[in-house]
Amino acid sequence: MNFSAEDKRYMKLAISIAEKARGFTSPNPMVGAVIVKDGKMLSSGYHKKAGSSHAEVEAINACPDKKLLAGATMYVSLEPCCIYGKTPPCTEAIIKNGISRVVAACRDPNPEVSGRGFEILKAAGVIVDYGLLEERAKKQNEIFFKSITSGRPFVTIKIASSLDGRTALDSGNSKWITSEKSRRLVQKMRLKNDCILTGINTVLTDDPLLHLRIAKTSSVPLKSRKFLRAILDSSLRISPQSKIACTSERIKTIVFTSSLNNEQRKKAALLKKMGMEITEIKELQKQKENTDITLLDLSQILKILHDNYEVTSVLVEAGQMLCSSFLKNKLFDKMILFMAPKIIGNDSRYGMFGNLSTKLLSDCPVLEIESVKNIDGDLMITAYPKKKNALL
Amino acid sequence: MNFSAEDKRYMKLAISIAEKARGFTSPNPMVGAVIVKDGKMLSSGYHKKAGSSHAEVEAINACPDKKLLAGATMYVSLEPCCIYGKTPPCTEAIIKNGISRVVAACRDPNPEVSGRGFEILKAAGVIVDYGLLEERAKKQNEIFFKSITSGRPFVTIKIASSLDGRTALDSGNSKWITSEKSRRLVQKMRLKNDCILTGINTVLTDDPLLHLRIAKTSSVPLKSRKFLRAILDSSLRISPQSKIACTSERIKTIVFTSSLNNEQRKKAALLKKMGMEITEIKELQKQKENTDITLLDLSQILKILHDNYEVTSVLVEAGQMLCSSFLKNKLFDKMILFMAPKIIGNDSRYGMFGNLSTKLLSDCPVLEIESVKNIDGDLMITAYPKKKNALL
Repeated sequence: MNFSAEDKRYMKLAISIAEKARGFTSPNPMVGAVIVKDGKMLSSGYHKKAGSSHAEVEAINACPDKKLLAGATMYVSLEPCCIYGKTPPCTEAIIKNGISRVVAACRDPNPEVSGRGFEILKAAGVIVDYGLLEERAKKQNEIFFKSITSGRPFVTIKIASSLDGRTALDSGNSKWITSEKSRRLVQKMRLKNDCILTGINTVLTDDPLLHLRIAKTSSVPLKSRKFLRAILDSSLRISPQSKIACTSERIKTIVFTSSLNNEQRKKAALLKKMGMEITEIKELQKQKENTDITLLDLSQILKILHDNYEVTSVLVEAGQMLCSSFLKNKLFDKMILFMAPKIIGNDSRYGMFGNLSTKLLSDCPVLEIESVKNIDGDLMITAYPKKKNALL
Repeated sequence: MNFSAEDKRYMKLAISIAEKARGFTSPNPMVGAVIVKDGKMLSSGYHKKAGSSHAEVEAINACPDKKLLAGATMYVSLEPCCIYGKTPPCTEAIIKNGISRVVAACRDPNPEVSGRGFEILKAAGVIVDYGLLEERAKKQNEIFFKSITSGRPFVTIKIASSLDGRTALDSGNSKWITSEKSRRLVQKMRLKNDCILTGINTVLTDDPLLHLRIAKTSSVPLKSRKFLRAILDSSLRISPQSKIACTSERIKTIVFTSSLNNEQRKKAALLKKMGMEITEIKELQKQKENTDITLLDLSQILKILHDNYEVTSVLVEAGQMLCSSFLKNKLFDKMILFMAPKIIGNDSRYGMFGNLSTKLLSDCPVLEIESVKNIDGDLMITAYPKKKNALL
């Protein structure tokens, strides 16, 4: 299919409109739609948040005169749905309003839809063209594509380090290696994820809040979005006085732990009363390198977050042990590194990752660097695990 | 002074012509000159190598009809010299040929010239304008500017590492972390420096050749350029069987050592016979952290290379101990890091730098990153020590 310059322009617009809802549509994808007739744009719409109308219906409803829709073209960044979910199927609305052509960026990876939406439209006589700006649209919804096809959340590891790969001085001091602007960007990253995950060591060392600190001037309706904290703490060492425990009534917080003894059970009861959820999971077999954190089964944790909490994206903000566990278990989808142009030196034991026990250079985990940005002097490196079609 | 678009165009040309001689002019700067009259370029020239004519004279000689030079403008990337060196002063040639305006990018930092070249031209009635594309011209000759004003060579530290700042697996294996293309670029960097400097540990571990491996198809007349190897080896542990020793007859190699005992003196005599130069220097006071390498006084070594061997640029290709010595002693001017998108992990003891014993994050060495390039997936990061006017 050869798409025209006009097609491309409107699809770009649909994708950029979709972006407005980043962070608010989980577990749904972001979708944008633009309706055009005789070279003129009639209306546009996007999926604002889970439970609200889909982009196609938003665009149709935004058209001031519905009669104009007959014979129009709809540009949509994802295949229109054909199932009754929280809202009626978009295919129905498209057909009913006489839209004669649908240009879609990509298929819906949801096995209940994939391709069927297109089939239903075609059967009703609608011309369907898809594959326009497909990579860009998939990239925009990398979280949705990953979570719907794998059954686990999209995992982003975030690390702040010096240029020589140290996350703290040997004293443990890490405040602050990176620039204020980099740290503000981390706040924005949190907004784009459903859940922040960390380990008990980070909680004990830094007593972080791990919340969204957003300027009061922000127009983002924070309350309307999903936001969880997940703490990996096999022996339930978290203090009821920690900032996380003290704020767990208003910020949903799940502590993953394992095989608690009686005293720990009493502590668990107290923490639950404070508002925390304590989830006991099976412990992995103890190995030489296991620590408090690595004893917990990451894939089980991710599955619980996905299945029980509808978490589609997890931001890992943790120490080297936990980061390397995700790496070793190949349970990460993206890595964002903030590297300050400072040198800390080999006397710091705090690396970006813990021991990987790699015997050959050819066995090292390999990434593909997508972009490097200059953030007030720091490097912000965005990378993906190296593989073909990483998104699917 | 406001320069015209034409001025800028010709100065850009002069600077780019100068670049042709990179690596061949030491201890002189690279200089390019362009002569223009009535909006037409008459000729151009550049300083090809130390001992050859200067750019101004090259450009004058390249003009097919010398009579045209009267009333012409000369664009030159550095202030014309006014002293009798290996060639007569350029100011003389400019005045004699009736060139009526000289546009220069910057002053000559050489205290014997600085500003005097301009004065002599002005006194003879030549219009002098300078400061056009000054930063670009200074940057091009950062080696010359540093060495002539400081009396020591310009020092570039080159390091190849993983993304988490490790230069080898814990086994010591480092072949190869970075891509082939990155390694070819290192070869090109060697071509731009007068001297490669390394430590005895690197020699003992890797037995490197540290020479210029250039494709046979290259048109670069390698024999016509200066190239030295400097090895820091306080107890003269280098083997007469090492590749470096075996090639020292054809590649000038200086071993810096200190306080040799009788047996070491015998070895020194053998190595000298093989072609090496053995330079004994005073040992620094022994401290807890001193190693074989860090016992040697780096500033003394750099001064010897500069004063006795006319070395204006040194490329440090060494292990973490030596790299951090340069860092701690603030004896480096540029850093080039090749970072492969691989993760090695904290079980490797091979960091980019050794111990720096920094107690506060605010005391860490800070760099300014100038550029980041993608070299076949690797990041090539070019950085300078953070300070104002680093070049001067």
